[in-house]
Amino acid sequence: MLPFTPKNPDFREIATATFDTQRAMRTLGISLARLEPGEVELAMPYSPDFTQQNGFVHAGIITAGLDNACGIAAFSLMPAGSDILTVEFKTNLLAPAKGERFMFRGIVIKPGRTLTVCEGRAYAVQDGVETLIATMTGTLMSLPRRERVE
Amino acid sequence: MLPFTPKNPDFREIATATFDTQRAMRTLGISLARLEPGEVELAMPYSPDFTQQNGFVHAGIITAGLDNACGIAAFSLMPAGSDILTVEFKTNLLAPAKGERFMFRGIVIKPGRTLTVCEGRAYAVQDGVETLIATMTGTLMSLPRRERVE
Amino acid sequence: MLPFTPKNPDFREIATATFDTQRAMRTLGISLARLEPGEVELAMPYSPDFTQQNGFVHAGIITAGLDNACGIAAFSLMPAGSDILTVEFKTNLLAPAKGERFMFRGIVIKPGRTLTVCEGRAYAVQDGVETLIATMTGTLMSLPRRERVE
Amino acid sequence: MLPFTPKNPDFREIATATFDTQRAMRTLGISLARLEPGEVELAMPYSPDFTQQNGFVHAGIITAGLDNACGIAAFSLMPAGSDILTVEFKTNLLAPAKGERFMFRGIVIKPGRTLTVCEGRAYAVQDGVETLIATMTGTLMSLPRRERVE
Repeated sequence: MLPFTPKNPDFREIATATFDTQRAMRTLGISLARLEPGEVELAMPYSPDFTQQNGFVHAGIITAGLDNACGIAAFSLMPAGSDILTVEFKTNLLAPAKGERFMFRGIVIKPGRTLTVCEGRAYAVQDGVETLIATMTGTLMSLPRRERVE
Repeated sequence: MLPFTPKNPDFREIATATFDTQRAMRTLGISLARLEPGEVELAMPYSPDFTQQNGFVHAGIITAGLDNACGIAAFSLMPAGSDILTVEFKTNLLAPAKGERFMFRGIVIKPGRTLTVCEGRAYAVQDGVETLIATMTGTLMSLPRRERVE
Repeated sequence: MLPFTPKNPDFREIATATFDTQRAMRTLGISLARLEPGEVELAMPYSPDFTQQNGFVHAGIITAGLDNACGIAAFSLMPAGSDILTVEFKTNLLAPAKGERFMFRGIVIKPGRTLTVCEGRAYAVQDGVETLIATMTGTLMSLPRRERVE
Repeated sequence: MLPFTPKNPDFREIATATFDTQRAMRTLGISLARLEPGEVELAMPYSPDFTQQNGFVHAGIITAGLDNACGIAAFSLMPAGSDILTVEFKTNLLAPAKGERFMFRGIVIKPGRTLTVCEGRAYAVQDGVETLIATMTGTLMSLPRRERVE
């Protein structure tokens, strides 16, 4: 479906600012690696702080990265003054989250005035080799911006 | 479907030990509040470290709690010597993750030799009032235990 | 979350009429067995016409029943003049769809102005015994009614 | 991930035979249009018998096509003597199922000894134009073949 034409000419600045406001992303060490209209890539180094019982990164953490990649991808196509909300997502875990770092790619499959559907892919990177470890399909909702809760 | 008869008489000790081995749970401040055969409750205090752009807890973090509640519930019914793997899950976000603390309840809907299906509910607690904020349906897989990756 | 107060006093008549307009339901032999605000039960006899390779009812047909139970449950709480659309659903198949007849129960988990989240359960009935064979979580959307396509 | 090497040299004959054994596919008018290792395309003409209240094809029927495309794609990579079972799937409905005919494409994302993960896409075709109307992610399970229930 790509490429998309963004409705908000300042989408890059706004989407980056929204990403930066998420303390969860900072805590998890997730950064914005690439941002195009309807397409996002996030990066996360391995950290033992977020592992499950076998030493792999926890599925919930992988999901946090995927959800954010999808959310920012959807958000990049929304008009100015929008806030974004995740309605639902589904994750399939395909391989252990084992690697030096992780990439989360989100793309818009179907943009909409109210609902946007995205797909995400998570990759583990080890010695330069990428392995697909998880997929997401998610539904995001656009709504008028609200103020941050203090 | 409850109550279930556990196949492993030491299920409580083993499930608790597995939970405790997950560094992600410690980092997120999630603790095991209740454990019965096929039924688990986890608790998490609010922390600004895991918030999204509106100051609510990030959907991925809520999903980490739900996934773990489902995983430990499924694990509690597995025979001795099992390891557990999440195959997939689906989360619906129903209300903002806004509260003093959060509860994650997981129950087994259908136990199986290979696959177990669970349902999870996440609640925000504020001033003693619980609000349902998210649901999960997840598939967990039993497999022979492997050694921890160092 | 039940019981719910319907916004449309004629919900029963409107929901029944909408159900009856669905030719797919007639073709599949699915009928409306019970309708309360936010809660629906549908019934379907076994038919060899809708079986898969092992003689069980096809997962897509079971999903059609579940989706409709969820949709009518959501619709029963919507204001007059609404049309309803399925946004997404997720089905877990728990046991073979093998029986004399099948029941599909849908309940509203979270009603909303735009989006309503429902859960469905499908049961096979054989010799008076009900077996849970599938679950659904689905998101339904309310939108202004449109005219039927001829 | 494509192309895949099938484990069963007779995959084409076996998968076709399995497809043909499904009476639901015949009743719905769904036929096998293309079959490659890990990749399947099914076709279905529009029929008013399977419509919902707006005259569009019912979401459950679209799901039946998607599930079967995914199932046959997964089955094509399984060893001889396997039967296949759908564990779960998730469908997002993106646009009304309105067209002269419909195409269901399923591909394997991750083959496995026990579980295979597939993605499906449903398209409506009108005047030679294809519109993406639905997506699926599904998990399929391989198990030893059982005899058909009479």
